[in-house]
Amino acid sequence: MPEPSTKAEYVVGVDLGGTKILAGLFDGWLECIGTAKVSTKSQRGVESVVERIDRCVRDAVDEADLTMKQVAGVGIGAPGAVDFEAGNVIFAPNLDGWKDVPLKKELEKHLGLPVFVENDANIAVLGVHVAELKSKPRNVVGIFVGTGIGGGLIVNGELYSGFNHTAGEIGHMVIDVNGPKCGCGNKGCFEAVASRTAIFQRIKAGIKDGEKTLLTEMLGDGLEDLRSGDLRKAIRRGDKFIGKVVEQTAEYIGIGVANLVNILGPEVVVLGGGVMEALADEMTSVIIKTAKDHAMPGTIKGVEIIASKLGDNAGITGAAVLARRETK
Amino acid sequence: MPEPSTKAEYVVGVDLGGTKILAGLFDGWLECIGTAKVSTKSQRGVESVVERIDRCVRDAVDEADLTMKQVAGVGIGAPGAVDFEAGNVIFAPNLDGWKDVPLKKELEKHLGLPVFVENDANIAVLGVHVAELKSKPRNVVGIFVGTGIGGGLIVNGELYSGFNHTAGEIGHMVIDVNGPKCGCGNKGCFEAVASRTAIFQRIKAGIKDGEKTLLTEMLGDGLEDLRSGDLRKAIRRGDKFIGKVVEQTAEYIGIGVANLVNILGPEVVVLGGGVMEALADEMTSVIIKTAKDHAMPGTIKGVEIIASKLGDNAGITGAAVLARRETK
Repeated sequence: MPEPSTKAEYVVGVDLGGTKILAGLFDGWLECIGTAKVSTKSQRGVESVVERIDRCVRDAVDEADLTMKQVAGVGIGAPGAVDFEAGNVIFAPNLDGWKDVPLKKELEKHLGLPVFVENDANIAVLGVHVAELKSKPRNVVGIFVGTGIGGGLIVNGELYSGFNHTAGEIGHMVIDVNGPKCGCGNKGCFEAVASRTAIFQRIKAGIKDGEKTLLTEMLGDGLEDLRSGDLRKAIRRGDKFIGKVVEQTAEYIGIGVANLVNILGPEVVVLGGGVMEALADEMTSVIIKTAKDHAMPGTIKGVEIIASKLGDNAGITGAAVLARRETK
Repeated sequence: MPEPSTKAEYVVGVDLGGTKILAGLFDGWLECIGTAKVSTKSQRGVESVVERIDRCVRDAVDEADLTMKQVAGVGIGAPGAVDFEAGNVIFAPNLDGWKDVPLKKELEKHLGLPVFVENDANIAVLGVHVAELKSKPRNVVGIFVGTGIGGGLIVNGELYSGFNHTAGEIGHMVIDVNGPKCGCGNKGCFEAVASRTAIFQRIKAGIKDGEKTLLTEMLGDGLEDLRSGDLRKAIRRGDKFIGKVVEQTAEYIGIGVANLVNILGPEVVVLGGGVMEALADEMTSVIIKTAKDHAMPGTIKGVEIIASKLGDNAGITGAAVLARRETK
């Protein structure tokens, strides 16, 4: 646990997502004492998003009844490849026009505070490692299942990002070479078979083929505004088709876990992201069973596979950890 | 380059394989000045294999006109999960009855020299890193394609073996979830679609379906004693079917490379093993093209993908490096 300092003892952690920006103000004990949220609206351009991050940070500080002078620095997780040293977002596929954006520099101009930028999944696994994993395992794989699938790696106790700062791009690991097409152009990527997007496509295809589901009663035939939480509700009301789709998805996640355990030999695999947050009770045991069935016996012995309890806060927590470390 | 010491300046590197044991005597400049080879015959039991390793080491020393007193230590790469600290082979699927074998202890009794045991693919990537990669990249993935597929990882400049000493089990990464059955019981593992075994099965299935190949002329209808070198000969004599099978295998290897680049972000990917040694000219460009097509654009930029020139000597070289380091 970080020691509180005497001045400017607070930090802000920001999770920059494709649809929303979340900011949290954290004290010296890594407690979150104020949050704010704004939509990203990346179609308005890079400068507009930077202004919205600025506003979101100030809102979180205000929410906690503090002033910007009490903040030592800001950490931010961005959804793409990040050059940490330069503070540049190299490429973020889910943000319109984000290529080689000097986010650190731009945001520092707005905020007048030091800013530190990392990849969002790296940040999230750092948050889980510091705030949730009491045993401080040396090697951790974080798998974050949402619209896509992101990964973050702790290797030998440190965040690991590799040569091009892109390590942990587990969402585009091919696991079904003849499988459904992925947004990246390949077939059968992990996120093409196991993300929320993959679940929704499987549901829509099933409905077309005549499958019955409570979701059409709940949301209409077009399944407008379908969210992961709706899947949980449907399953708990006895929807067998949705139960089957979610189980199949959990099996794919389990195969992905097995691949990563075989390759990386971690002590702990942490599952997070919106899909896991909504469906952890339904999916976790299937994921663990499938992973154990698929990993080599020696590789998975003693490996913990757990669903993170930080949920949506993993990102802002990790970003706060980063800001704390870098401003100490 | 290691400095030669004044006494016992030589080391022996051993590559313990499922079918053969190879030993090399190395001088202080990491030059191999004597080798020996015996078959493994693991069906005769663990103690017999240990005796054969002992004999092979002594033969290599004799081959170089030296005595055991001039040898500082012996490194050995074993085909399975290894506990380096204890010097135990935890499990080696291709050696009959090898479960929890105290190889270091047993071999030290025979040889009267310090012995150091590591996984064979780890050892091979270490050998390539020290003896072949002049730029000393910090992060390297080694992919060794033979009867199966083994992997070794250099992370942050050091050999990396993870929590259960099993990291780099890339041969059982699932890449075709509905693909051919693997020896491990799963479907579509990397080695089930891209190893020599996979190539041979594809050829045999093709012949059954009426494909014509020069191999049946060369070796008879049963393809007795088929080796990787025969594939090269057939292709160079214009065998289109074998050319197609090898190309398809190279594409699978390329997808495996892309997965590992996405996950690990290495600077260099090194391809080795018997299949690569025989077919590097035929396969390397296809592997590189497929890997570039499948990896995320940002992850593979500037990444070198090369075929090792050490060939079969990667294992004994790495084992010698290990022995040198540990006895210094």
